[in-house]
Amino acid sequence: MYAVEVSDHIMIAHSFRGEVFGPAQRLHGATFAVSAAFLAQALDRDGIVVDIGRAFAALKEVLAPLNYRNLDDMSEFKSVNTTTEFLTRHVFEGLAAAVKSGRLGRDGREIAAIRVTVAESPSARAWYEGALW
Amino acid sequence: MYAVEVSDHIMIAHSFRGEVFGPAQRLHGATFAVSAAFLAQALDRDGIVVDIGRAFAALKEVLAPLNYRNLDDMSEFKSVNTTTEFLTRHVFEGLAAAVKSGRLGRDGREIAAIRVTVAESPSARAWYEGALW
Amino acid sequence: MYAVEVSDHIMIAHSFRGEVFGPAQRLHGATFAVSAAFLAQALDRDGIVVDIGRAFAALKEVLAPLNYRNLDDMSEFKSVNTTTEFLTRHVFEGLAAAVKSGRLGRDGREIAAIRVTVAESPSARAWYEGALW
Amino acid sequence: MYAVEVSDHIMIAHSFRGEVFGPAQRLHGATFAVSAAFLAQALDRDGIVVDIGRAFAALKEVLAPLNYRNLDDMSEFKSVNTTTEFLTRHVFEGLAAAVKSGRLGRDGREIAAIRVTVAESPSARAWYEGALW
Amino acid sequence: MYAVEVSDHIMIAHSFRGEVFGPAQRLHGATFAVSAAFLAQALDRDGIVVDIGRAFAALKEVLAPLNYRNLDDMSEFKSVNTTTEFLTRHVFEGLAAAVKSGRLGRDGREIAAIRVTVAESPSARAWYEGALW
Amino acid sequence: MYAVEVSDHIMIAHSFRGEVFGPAQRLHGATFAVSAAFLAQALDRDGIVVDIGRAFAALKEVLAPLNYRNLDDMSEFKSVNTTTEFLTRHVFEGLAAAVKSGRLGRDGREIAAIRVTVAESPSARAWYEGALW
Repeated sequence: MYAVEVSDHIMIAHSFRGEVFGPAQRLHGATFAVSAAFLAQALDRDGIVVDIGRAFAALKEVLAPLNYRNLDDMSEFKSVNTTTEFLTRHVFEGLAAAVKSGRLGRDGREIAAIRVTVAESPSARAWYEGALW
Repeated sequence: MYAVEVSDHIMIAHSFRGEVFGPAQRLHGATFAVSAAFLAQALDRDGIVVDIGRAFAALKEVLAPLNYRNLDDMSEFKSVNTTTEFLTRHVFEGLAAAVKSGRLGRDGREIAAIRVTVAESPSARAWYEGALW
Repeated sequence: MYAVEVSDHIMIAHSFRGEVFGPAQRLHGATFAVSAAFLAQALDRDGIVVDIGRAFAALKEVLAPLNYRNLDDMSEFKSVNTTTEFLTRHVFEGLAAAVKSGRLGRDGREIAAIRVTVAESPSARAWYEGALW
Repeated sequence: MYAVEVSDHIMIAHSFRGEVFGPAQRLHGATFAVSAAFLAQALDRDGIVVDIGRAFAALKEVLAPLNYRNLDDMSEFKSVNTTTEFLTRHVFEGLAAAVKSGRLGRDGREIAAIRVTVAESPSARAWYEGALW
Repeated sequence: MYAVEVSDHIMIAHSFRGEVFGPAQRLHGATFAVSAAFLAQALDRDGIVVDIGRAFAALKEVLAPLNYRNLDDMSEFKSVNTTTEFLTRHVFEGLAAAVKSGRLGRDGREIAAIRVTVAESPSARAWYEGALW
Repeated sequence: MYAVEVSDHIMIAHSFRGEVFGPAQRLHGATFAVSAAFLAQALDRDGIVVDIGRAFAALKEVLAPLNYRNLDDMSEFKSVNTTTEFLTRHVFEGLAAAVKSGRLGRDGREIAAIRVTVAESPSARAWYEGALW
């Protein structure tokens, strides 16, 4: 299996509900370093998994609505904790939609899976990997 | 599959038996940068894989008996080479026990697997990944 | 000149006032990876610049009041922008006080200077270096 | 599953054919940071996956013909784009041959798979993972 | 002294003249990870050294003519070896001009110095630091 | 001022004398990631500070006697604590001798200073910088 992975980052504020979060129940923030890997069984005729420029653009497009925001204020996140894990899946869903709509520049069915990794600090990160079909 | 990974490090001395190890047969040492990833099919109701604070604590608890030690002097390692690979499994077993006893703060059966990565230098590392059930 | 540098991190929320900040005028957040270097002309009789354990403790003590906080809510920061640059100096002042009070475990006069580096993302960081005497 | 991974790097020039590559159709170059991971179900009697010294040597041997070269000038690459993805597979094939010929110092059949990761920049990388048998 | 540092990268081809360069006399290439630090004695009234957005833009503007190029083909580099060290100074000169022309958004005279760091691989880098006035 | 910096690493065992060291008084070990920077006011006629190949060789030569050793057993270190700080100076002295004897391939008097940085873990490092003349 081949993979191509591109990285970007966002800076957000948020707070969590639940005793398990301790001081992170207070409004705080994070720099999330986000990597998106696209997996495929074979390279296309150009010798690539996906166009790396389009991969960067797709990741940036998914991240843009979150960047420099207080996630607590966004209606779509009203009923959830926007944990690092939760955001890996959120980014995955946005990228999966981009692949399926053909925006990555290759027949989306040739992309088998996506893995999204989000580092919240030098010592903690999360990832989500899922098949697309 | 979701994962949450936390990192810590230990500083140990040890030596290896076997010609294959060359100069590493002499007593030497290493800083081991250790990452432990906990994998689960679904997030819990708080939106997490495991409480990151408990994950750090479990990793520290498994590493503590090794830190600032000469592993050659520890009776449990008498008959083995404490290679980087060996230690990935040793840490895995300690964390697996923590998960199964419920110390990670979630029904252990919801944690599917653990991956332990140990970097011994900027250019070499090892990992062990195993299912828990 | 010798230096010993230790690192830690904090996760905070804040916003900035001033058109120059663009979208960062909105409430957002950051993971700040903070490194503190202590500089000295000579090692002490134990062969160290400062006790690394005390250096970690001093850095943690200075960072603790900021961690998991919205800096906009802290009275001491009411009239300033808590930029990455500003925070390098804030941490410097806290560490300078620790050195001067002898809390680093060595005659503070033997510590010549401190450099504080704060990384806000994989592609941007700031530092402040100042003499202590 | 256990893995041992070693890293090295090469500095090459090349160009790509195809509109998708935009400015990378021009002759340019890259530092490729290459990591090779060898995967095995069990450790050998020395407690290792493979001898790390031999792993470094095998990786260096596969990379040497590429280092400080213009890949466009190499006859074996005449009809292909030497993309980062393509090179992950090229290195994989060279290492697979080394394993199968016994040059890694262990019965090659005990090495289950190889993963080759190639980073082209701080924000983009590719990998290829394949079973050996 | 305060500093703010931003990072970007370029991918270039080139070759060197001189026996000292060994195999690097052949046409090869590099990914150069470039960091530019702007140093100032004091923060401005917004609490910054320079606007980080303008700093990124200035660095990108200086790097753009080099990116995805064979430096051997550029007339301005005809008589020189475009070593990593040489390029640190080249980028420094471009950024110094940007500061002096006021493009960094602050009275250029308040920027005391610039340090440009260029990493050519995980194990080698160069930097140039110079005063501006 | 220009600088060229190269990196390597060693794996050693040692112990410290003095209550300040706490558990590090026990025999333990470390991977030391060592960087050596050579500083010069001007580039030579080839456009370099020093030949990077010779710089790597000089660093390796200074580190070799320490690698895979228990520093407590080395007679030259009998009366000292081989702390990270101490080792930065030890490596500096070895490299200074190499420069002064002309082994770096340039009139040693043109190298103004050397800075040696030693990282003992992901969160702690030390450096020593000294003028050569």
